[in-house]
Amino acid sequence: MSTAAAGKGLEGIVAANSGVCWIDGEAGVLSYRGIDIHELAEHSTFEETTYLLWNGILPNQLRLREFTAQLALARALDARIIDLLKSFPATATPMEVLRTAVSALSFYDADEKDSSHDANVRKAYNLTAQMAMIVAIYDRIRKGLEIIPPDRSLSHAGNFLWMLNGVKPSETATKTLDVALVLHADHELNASTFAARVIAATLSDIHSAVTGAIGALKGPLHGGANEAVMRLLYTIDKAGADPVEYVKNMLAARQKISGFGHRVYKTEDPRATHLRRMSEQLGKDAGQPKWYEMSRAIELYINADKKLNANVDFYSASTYATLGIDIDLYTPIFAISRIAGWAAHIIEQLDDNRLIRPRAEYIGPEYPARYVPMEERG
Amino acid sequence: MSTAAAGKGLEGIVAANSGVCWIDGEAGVLSYRGIDIHELAEHSTFEETTYLLWNGILPNQLRLREFTAQLALARALDARIIDLLKSFPATATPMEVLRTAVSALSFYDADEKDSSHDANVRKAYNLTAQMAMIVAIYDRIRKGLEIIPPDRSLSHAGNFLWMLNGVKPSETATKTLDVALVLHADHELNASTFAARVIAATLSDIHSAVTGAIGALKGPLHGGANEAVMRLLYTIDKAGADPVEYVKNMLAARQKISGFGHRVYKTEDPRATHLRRMSEQLGKDAGQPKWYEMSRAIELYINADKKLNANVDFYSASTYATLGIDIDLYTPIFAISRIAGWAAHIIEQLDDNRLIRPRAEYIGPEYPARYVPMEERG
Repeated sequence: MSTAAAGKGLEGIVAANSGVCWIDGEAGVLSYRGIDIHELAEHSTFEETTYLLWNGILPNQLRLREFTAQLALARALDARIIDLLKSFPATATPMEVLRTAVSALSFYDADEKDSSHDANVRKAYNLTAQMAMIVAIYDRIRKGLEIIPPDRSLSHAGNFLWMLNGVKPSETATKTLDVALVLHADHELNASTFAARVIAATLSDIHSAVTGAIGALKGPLHGGANEAVMRLLYTIDKAGADPVEYVKNMLAARQKISGFGHRVYKTEDPRATHLRRMSEQLGKDAGQPKWYEMSRAIELYINADKKLNANVDFYSASTYATLGIDIDLYTPIFAISRIAGWAAHIIEQLDDNRLIRPRAEYIGPEYPARYVPMEERG
Repeated sequence: MSTAAAGKGLEGIVAANSGVCWIDGEAGVLSYRGIDIHELAEHSTFEETTYLLWNGILPNQLRLREFTAQLALARALDARIIDLLKSFPATATPMEVLRTAVSALSFYDADEKDSSHDANVRKAYNLTAQMAMIVAIYDRIRKGLEIIPPDRSLSHAGNFLWMLNGVKPSETATKTLDVALVLHADHELNASTFAARVIAATLSDIHSAVTGAIGALKGPLHGGANEAVMRLLYTIDKAGADPVEYVKNMLAARQKISGFGHRVYKTEDPRATHLRRMSEQLGKDAGQPKWYEMSRAIELYINADKKLNANVDFYSASTYATLGIDIDLYTPIFAISRIAGWAAHIIEQLDDNRLIRPRAEYIGPEYPARYVPMEERG
């Protein structure tokens, strides 16, 4: 066997060919199918971006209309999934619930036994529509509120806010969430997407791959970071502390500040640029600039002192807080966007598959270690 | 960014340091913590092997007794998990059920919010005991049979057969399954274990990592292969065909024969040696040598014609068939063994963690591709 040592974490190692996403970490460039994320954040929508990620090109008017209609039509959940959500204990966190419910969706998917390309695309429509519904419905259930049926005339972002809050969302709220969904939709071989591809590469099904991806996204070193950022802001606010002093003390105690630094970017995360702007604007419009201002103060301090840049998670926290969204829904919202990228990567993997099976550098007892008989063991 | 190309599938690339398992694919060596798999298959038990995988050394008599007792004590499922299993549709396959139920187990695990090393070890005990129970209980439920309560005086293998069949298993059946569990318990960075480590490395929880691993194991290029082998044997038998002729025709039609070849081994899979022997012996003892004989004929032909060796999946099929186990439980049985290795790897990953985040070789449209305005799109 000849193996190449990659060091822990596969840093800088190419694990797949992919045409979905291109990142230049030195220059701070993120692009989907070659199109810069700044263009997409300014001009596109989640629906159009999802079409782009899945098909490789932008849709014309007719195709976009069809795609949007199909995604809206997929807003349907088997009644047994809603019963399942109702059966979960009140202590279940939304990410555990999403992971479990997405796994259960395969029971009721008409295409479960079909792993053709076309069936996988149909499952991708279903999963994209259903995951957003599951997050909204479970939140209503745990709060003892009535479940709101989907509104197929609304956009993906608008329908999510409608099903979550039971009131028609403002244009600003819908637009803000829509841009956030565009920004989070893909990020090359991030840990959850990579987990999804490893699972899919055994020729397992798309529900298995997405269930695994949700489990990976849940981790505080990945999607879970935006929740950690907001918990910190709340803690500082409750303590009436100065944000910079508070963070200074945390750093002195060698505590990690979530939302800074990135494995790939050596510059500012280009997604942070948009989320910062939205966080500031939303705070102004709502007459509640506090979360933005605290975030900005912390960011400037950490920029200067640690030479670390804010990443996608840092300003998504204050943005969602200003939209009135509960902290433990931040990572699920990441998931209801990233499903677009997960599906694109899983289908790309399955279209030209090879099992992903690396090796380990062995650091255990030398072979052959003796099987010491029981009577000789100390 | 400097990246190293690894080719698709990370073949021969080192993705982690690990002291759990050492494989020499050229020499056909598999060892757990340095001890040869042949020694373990002949002298050890699943409980002792699990202790070895988790602790790095063989237990003395007292420690093994304590460990076995603790694992037996963990044979308990929240009543809501049993209700959940009852709520699944009759069409749900055991691997989908196991994936969903393991995800739901986190709701009821007292240590869910605790990710310390000790809490993870407690979760590993629970998962090991609970997964076997879930597989057995769901099989009883779907068949309309009474659920059998666990017997804590039996071994892990014995209790599984007891809960599955509702009769005290024979010594031969228990011993056969026990050896099969030892043989399947770990295999370095196979796809499901690697998926588990990728998920755990975001600092997500052990339930997320194991749920993802079950999804990966489900794939026909991984654990799903033993079910494919048996489906082939049944098909040949039903058609009254000659096994070698049948397989010859399949190969001529470029169809894949499951259970042959391995990414890592260039020789015979050392696990196949034991499973072949058990398959033969069981068939003789039961007066039902058919499955072994068909398997052996196919193996000799493929050895000679394709220079491919049987792997772990090939003779586990006929072994389980002769034990009277349903086909769609073969991969779940793989899972109730491999949880020992998954847990060892997850805990090892979390004890010295680094995010696993490789890169992709970009093959999409060149950056910057233009965001063509809608009115200009064809």
